[in-house]
Parts: sequence; structure tokens; C-alpha cells
Amino acid sequence: MNAEIIAVGSELLLGQIVNTNARFISQHLAGAGINVYYHTVVGDNPDRLKSAIEIAEDRSDLIIFTGGLGPTKDDLTKETIAKHIGKELVFDENALESIEAYFKKTNRQMTENNRKQALVLEGSYVLANDHGMAPGMVVESKRHVYMLLPGPPKEMEPMFIEYGLTALSLQVKSNDKIVSRVLRFFGIGEAALETEIIDLIDSQSNPTIAPLAGDGEVTLRLTAKHQDHDTAIKMLDEVEQKISARVGQFLYGYNNTSLVEELSKVLKAKNVTIGAAESLTGGMFQKELTSVPGASSILKGGVVCYTNEVKHQVLKVKQETIDMYGVVSEQCALELAENVSSLVGADIGISFTGVAGPDEQEGKPVGTVYIGLSIQGRPGVVEKVILAGSREANRTRAVKFGYYYLLKHLKESQNA
Amino acid sequence: MNAEIIAVGSELLLGQIVNTNARFISQHLAGAGINVYYHTVVGDNPDRLKSAIEIAEDRSDLIIFTGGLGPTKDDLTKETIAKHIGKELVFDENALESIEAYFKKTNRQMTENNRKQALVLEGSYVLANDHGMAPGMVVESKRHVYMLLPGPPKEMEPMFIEYGLTALSLQVKSNDKIVSRVLRFFGIGEAALETEIIDLIDSQSNPTIAPLAGDGEVTLRLTAKHQDHDTAIKMLDEVEQKISARVGQFLYGYNNTSLVEELSKVLKAKNVTIGAAESLTGGMFQKELTSVPGASSILKGGVVCYTNEVKHQVLKVKQETIDMYGVVSEQCALELAENVSSLVGADIGISFTGVAGPDEQEGKPVGTVYIGLSIQGRPGVVEKVILAGSREANRTRAVKFGYYYLLKHLKESQNA
Repeated sequence: MNAEIIAVGSELLLGQIVNTNARFISQHLAGAGINVYYHTVVGDNPDRLKSAIEIAEDRSDLIIFTGGLGPTKDDLTKETIAKHIGKELVFDENALESIEAYFKKTNRQMTENNRKQALVLEGSYVLANDHGMAPGMVVESKRHVYMLLPGPPKEMEPMFIEYGLTALSLQVKSNDKIVSRVLRFFGIGEAALETEIIDLIDSQSNPTIAPLAGDGEVTLRLTAKHQDHDTAIKMLDEVEQKISARVGQFLYGYNNTSLVEELSKVLKAKNVTIGAAESLTGGMFQKELTSVPGASSILKGGVVCYTNEVKHQVLKVKQETIDMYGVVSEQCALELAENVSSLVGADIGISFTGVAGPDEQEGKPVGTVYIGLSIQGRPGVVEKVILAGSREANRTRAVKFGYYYLLKHLKESQNA
Repeated sequence: MNAEIIAVGSELLLGQIVNTNARFISQHLAGAGINVYYHTVVGDNPDRLKSAIEIAEDRSDLIIFTGGLGPTKDDLTKETIAKHIGKELVFDENALESIEAYFKKTNRQMTENNRKQALVLEGSYVLANDHGMAPGMVVESKRHVYMLLPGPPKEMEPMFIEYGLTALSLQVKSNDKIVSRVLRFFGIGEAALETEIIDLIDSQSNPTIAPLAGDGEVTLRLTAKHQDHDTAIKMLDEVEQKISARVGQFLYGYNNTSLVEELSKVLKAKNVTIGAAESLTGGMFQKELTSVPGASSILKGGVVCYTNEVKHQVLKVKQETIDMYGVVSEQCALELAENVSSLVGADIGISFTGVAGPDEQEGKPVGTVYIGLSIQGRPGVVEKVILAGSREANRTRAVKFGYYYLLKHLKESQNA
């Protein structure tokens, strides 16, 4: 099956936004073994869109459209395709209900234009929009499969992976329910994770198990279909259990939760505060933690100790420690973590010291990182990590390892 | 003139990278008044590329290609176009020389494949590659103009704006020299800047003056053509002088220099060190300053004082100040800046306190920011800024204003 992705929207042609949708869809189609041979971008113009469709039909089996499903006059993807393939537009009751519910919830007046968004191509399998109003759809006509998706990535991405991809791979029928769950892992590579569960991946067809790697994390998407929604969820639970039994120690969260969000949640739930001493990360850990609103209840604050002087004078790292072991050392990391927690009056102290690059330091190679952790009531620990990226990549990765180890040790301290 | 952008590269169709080139080129073409009606992405396959070219010729006058100019067998953009429009590939002496010089400089062995990169379409205007090996080119054939650009954005972007766009707008001849210079402004909006110099923009045709806004900054690109390189530079100097006379106080740097790089440069040149107290920015200022290698010679370190407790206990902000004015205040900003510089032993202290949002604080609205500056030997100053973005946008913008005011006051302290 050869695919083509057509993005509809003049804002793309004006360079106001970049076509991340084509990249996202291509990446997932490649993972599903479907070839993508062309991407096209066309403006909000029915004649040019029609001509793009005709060109695509000549060279592709599956044509995926993004954009042009909104309520305004500019939005004409559905209408143009309907006319072109000779199908009617009909109201989808579920979509209409959820649009009405949305307006009721937000206390806004619903207009006729919004009703228009619930129109779908007759005979299509409707893809629910869990993050917006316009439903997506998949429809077959003659030799082609047409999939229509909304333009905003925050609506399109979950719709495509939770429903769209499954509609293609599981050959869903119109009364099937599809449910999907993402397991998020850190501290294990994609290849290692796959090796651990390759027999599960290979033997499963419903639910499907799809790995994806990026930004030092690996995720597994589990997708099940069943006519009964609860049964589909139970199917996911069972597969998750099997996976957890093997690689559960690397599983840190679900769906869109990032490591920093997960950490914020855990710290809030435990009602504990944190302070940070950052050398190589230069403030990055605290900057990210404070990007979540309400961070002041968990982060007391901390020190960016970029120079040895500040490590010694502000954070009271002993001069002997620096002289004997250097600042890129287990000993220094531990003192930094312990001392910053008392300095700012936090329950937990974390520290980052290491060699970001480009040059080595104290005879220690670029990528050497020590993360110190001081958790009240427990002996301090230091985790050593060796990273192999660029300067910025090493800093970013070090911060992620900080979140990960913190979560891990908090869990252990709870179990102890 | 209607344009189409064809990106060549299987890595795009696999979703490994996103087509930022099409966005970049579209944005600049829109600024130059050229309509872009289609973007196409096609893989490294001569038949599919040829068919994409034929489709483009049917509907567009100007066809811009990105990618496929590398030294490997996969790279076939030039060869496919040459065959299609019936032109020979010939060696460009300048391109060959610069490729040879590159290998000599990096002490690497040059292969026959690398020589291939110096081949250009006969009769084309060659676009120099200042950041890589593959030259670009512009060539006319029958009713069409074809422009070929390299794929890597760090090569493509400067080539397109410095030479490509000018080749389109100034109708260059093959012995013309094009020189280009970007002036970078902060603290003035695009509309305000344009208003100040609109008569210059309107009356200039060589050099051209092109404004562009983004990330709170505004840039002006000046481009001149002349057969004599030095004369072209002199033409730029003259226009720059006229612009500086009107809006020079907002001009902070040239070409690709960011505010943080400019600040690092100035601090290094003056041999002064800095310490930071960050409340609303949560470490972002220091994180960015330490992303530049060698930051330890300018940043001593600092404190992330996210809670009032840390402001008072670690940074010694007087309790009366907090009680009387609040922490989002001129008085608090000043004490933070002064005290952090003495705490870490730096020549300069800077502080950020404000309301990032989503909620107001101390009765002060979201977006209120105070930036305190304590420069050794001068009375402390506080700059107040009112921002109107999201939480993250306000934090990012506040940090930029910090760089800007620091640069401004350092300049003044020099002149004083």
C-alpha cells in the first residue's frame, strides 16, 4: 500500500507554520510498514485541492488529508472530496452530540457553522476527536482509501495514532470500539526494550504493541479493538501486566505524561519539597520544574554553582573534597545535594555535576555526569551516568536522568 | 510569479526530519511578494522526481528544489533536472576551489564524489555555499526558473536569503557580487521599526532592506549587489548608518548573533563576571548563558529563589521589603540583584521577579516583571516590563529583556 499525505492550508504556504503533521504521520506509517512516496501542501482553494487529489489518485492508494475540517468558509476539504468522489455529507450523531456537549460545557453559543463540523462522508468510519470538535474519517471509494484528519497537531496526533492507524491496520468495522494506551519508559534503550518483549510484540495482533523512541525515552503504544469498550480496556490491562512483569522497573508513566510532570505529581502527592544544586546543567532542572504552574509548592529553589568558588563558598563543599576528588566526583555530588537541601530548607536535595563538553575536565571525559540525591531520613546516593551526545544533548539528558533517579528512589523509599 | 517548493529526500518521507526548508523559503517568498501555491516532498528516486518536476512545470513558474546535492549516489537532483531540461553539467571553478580548500583545511582526503559537488547546470547563476560544499544555482529554461538549494538548513537558509532571494529580486548577472548583512533589534516592535524607516525601505532598491520579526526580535536584512565586492560593502555601510541614526538604540548585533551570545561576548571582552537571582524565570537565564561553552569565565553562578523563604534566607532580602512591597516589586528586585552579586562574588548581579501566570500574585497582574541590575561602581537600577503572553512565553521574553537591559546598561556604564 503506497500512501501520500496532503496538507491543506494557506498558512503552510505562507510559511506561518511548519508541516509537522506530515512528519508525524510518515513516522508512524513507516513503523506500520506503509510506504509514503509523496507529501503535498496545497492552499485553501477548491480547484487546486481537486487537482492535487487527482494527481494523488494517479500515484497512491492511501491518501491522507490534514486540515480544512474547521467551521469557517475556508475549510473545504470534506466538501471538495465529497464532490470529487461522488459521496454525500451526512450528520454523524456522535460527533454532533460531542460538539453540543462542548458548547454547553464552555457556555458558548453554538452556530450553524459548528454543526457543519459534524458532517461526515457517507459510509465512512468516523475517527473521534478527543481534543477538539472536527471528527476525522476513513472512507473507501473505488481503488482508494481516503483518510481525513483535522489540522491542529494536538487534535490530529492523538486521533491518528489512537484511531486512524488502527482503522488501517485492524480493519475495524463501524461498531468496533478502539482503545489505546501509551506506556512510557526511561533508562532502557529501544533495542533492549524490544528484545525483552519481542515474543509479545510478534504474537499479539489485538491488542497491537507498537514501540517508538525519541528524546532518550521509549514508548509502547497498546491498541485494542472490541465491540465492548470495557472488554477492550481489559485486553489492554492484560498485555500491560505481561510487559510490566519484564520491564516494569523502567516504566514511569502513561500517555502524554512527561518525566517532569510525573515527578511534579509524585512530589505534590507526597507533599515534599526539593532544592537543586546545578553545575553542568546550569539551571535547566529548575527551569523545567518551574515551567509547570504551581511549582512553588514543590521547588523551594536552589543554586546554580557553575564555578568551584560558588560550590565551596555558597554550597559549603569542603575544600578537601574539591582538592582530593575534584568537582566532577561522587563525593562532590553528594555534598552538593546534602548542602543545598539544608540551605534552602527542602526535604530533598538533588545535584548535577559533570563534564558537558566540548573539553574534558579534571581528566574526566566529556559526558561523565554525577547526580547526587539526598532524601530526608535516608542515606544519600549518587548515580553516575556516561552520556555520548553534544554539549546541549548531554545537559538535557542529564536532567532527564535526574527526574528518573529521583522518581526511582522516591518509590524505593516508599517501599522501604 | 507563482512558486512551488520541491523537497527531495527519503528521510522526509520516513518522518525522520520535518520539512522546515519549505516553511523558511515560503516565509521569505511571501515577504518578497511571490505566491507559493504548492509544496511537494519526493524521495531520492529519479523517476518520481522527474514526474514531480513535470507536475510542477504545469502549474508553477518558479520551482525551488531543496536537497539531493550531496556527494553520494542517492543525490540526484542536479542530474535529474539536467537531463529533464536538456542542459549539461559543468564544473564551476569557484565551487571546486572552495571544496578543495575545505578538504585541505580539515586534512581529509578528497574523493571524486566530492568533485561532483562542484558540477552546476550550464548557464546557471551559482549561489555560493558559505557553510558547506554543495553550491546552489538558478537557471532559466523556456518558461521556468529553477533554483537548486542544498538540503541541510544551516547551509540552505543563509544561501537562500543572502544569494537566492537576491538573485530573484535584483536580477543579478553572473559577474555580480552580492553581499548581505543582518541588523538585529530588540526592544522595538516590527511595526514601530518599519514606521521609523519606511521612507528608506521604500526608496531603496539596491541595497534592499527587508524586515523580519520573530521571537520578540526584529531583524533588517540589507543586501547589495555590485560587480566590485568592496563597493557593495560600502553601500551596506551607508544604509546601515542611515538606519542607525534613527533606531540605533535598539540595535544589539549583527547576522546570526543572538542576544545571549552578544552578552557573553561583551562580558568576556570587559572581563567581568555575573551572578543571577531568578524567581519567575526559575533558572532559565543561567541555563541559556551556560549553553555557550566557556560560560564559567563569565557566570559565577546564582540562586533560583522560587519561594519567599529562599529570597529571605539565602538571598537576604529584608523581611520588611517583602512585607511592605511584596516580592514582585522594584525594591525586592534591587535587593536580589545586589545581594546575589555579593553572595557569589560577581561584578554584576541580575534578578528576575514577576508574575508568570496563570494567576495574578500580590494583586499584580500576570506579565508584570521587574529586572534588577547591580553593576559594580554604579547605582542599582530596576527595569519594569509588562508582558502579554503565555506563562512560558513570558518567562522566555523576560530573560531576553534581561540580556537587553544588561547590554544597554553595560554600554552606558562604559560611556559614562
